[in-house]
Amino acid sequence: MQLLKERIRRDGIVREGGVLKVDSFLNHQMDIDLFEEIGKEFHRRFEGEEVTKILTIEASGIGIACITARYFQVPVVFAKKNKTKNIAGDVYTSRVESFTHGRVYDIMVSKDFLGKGDKVLLIDDFLANGKALEGLAQLVEDAGAELTGAGIVIEKGFQRGGDAIRGRGIHLESLAIIDSMDAASGTITFRER
Amino acid sequence: MQLLKERIRRDGIVREGGVLKVDSFLNHQMDIDLFEEIGKEFHRRFEGEEVTKILTIEASGIGIACITARYFQVPVVFAKKNKTKNIAGDVYTSRVESFTHGRVYDIMVSKDFLGKGDKVLLIDDFLANGKALEGLAQLVEDAGAELTGAGIVIEKGFQRGGDAIRGRGIHLESLAIIDSMDAASGTITFRER
Repeated sequence: MQLLKERIRRDGIVREGGVLKVDSFLNHQMDIDLFEEIGKEFHRRFEGEEVTKILTIEASGIGIACITARYFQVPVVFAKKNKTKNIAGDVYTSRVESFTHGRVYDIMVSKDFLGKGDKVLLIDDFLANGKALEGLAQLVEDAGAELTGAGIVIEKGFQRGGDAIRGRGIHLESLAIIDSMDAASGTITFRER
Repeated sequence: MQLLKERIRRDGIVREGGVLKVDSFLNHQMDIDLFEEIGKEFHRRFEGEEVTKILTIEASGIGIACITARYFQVPVVFAKKNKTKNIAGDVYTSRVESFTHGRVYDIMVSKDFLGKGDKVLLIDDFLANGKALEGLAQLVEDAGAELTGAGIVIEKGFQRGGDAIRGRGIHLESLAIIDSMDAASGTITFRER
């Protein structure tokens, strides 16, 4: 997605340790006009495939998922990271190791909102080691729902997550795949499709 | 907002201890068509007032804020609850006591995304004791930005938050204000405007 790549080049900041800061437009401040284009593009890439629900994970996936859902005309469910008073009752849970946060946490979805008959599109902002996406896919499987595919805004192609997900036969669409980044020069090299 | 009140009556579940579960359409599963109507209504209620940015708080405010932002044509910033690798650098912080989660936490926003010249509309799903909203208002003040007002989907009118916020002279618009709830009968009484 050309518009997205240009935006990453312009406003993304490369840090040591494979960190890409895109918090000026994607995951802290959110450019809703860009999100509209992202949503449109996800819809185009999954055209002809059946989607009845979008599943994402708090917090930075939610905005993208909600705008994307407008194009699919389906509800969004977000997996929660902490058990709260309000999510008492039966939940599907899965364990995720976060690259960004450097910790392990449980994600959960109420059994009320994911089940047999659902055809689920996963949406998230980043794909790095793929653990969040694998955790979400696990929730879909545990619920007896069908996984239509996964839409990712930025894939770190130099980490293993994307290959692992594709290797499992999941239809993965990443709008920008970064093959390499250099913190010293700020250079970002995108994969050509 | 009639449509919202009807939805709360139909799908909301009243629990002991002043808990209202609306996670089938508002804050776990999210009905994007309803969010569109909510966004439209916030825009109508703040008509003529200047808004350059929407500020919300993770996680359940984000979806509503993003859809609402389409009507105001402004970016959204969400305050984060935990310090992560990606939000290093200068931040504004504020302390919040959560009713839902029964704990105290810090919220923070990068200084890059809130500052002098911003006219900020706060958006959140719930207003109970008002602590989250007060924390957000504090971030706006610390940033030297201007607070245009606050848009809340559901206000628990039987708690003190709304009065406290209004008492501070903040333009608060709550789309549904609940004056009382009864867990035994499931009755919800809305305030008439």
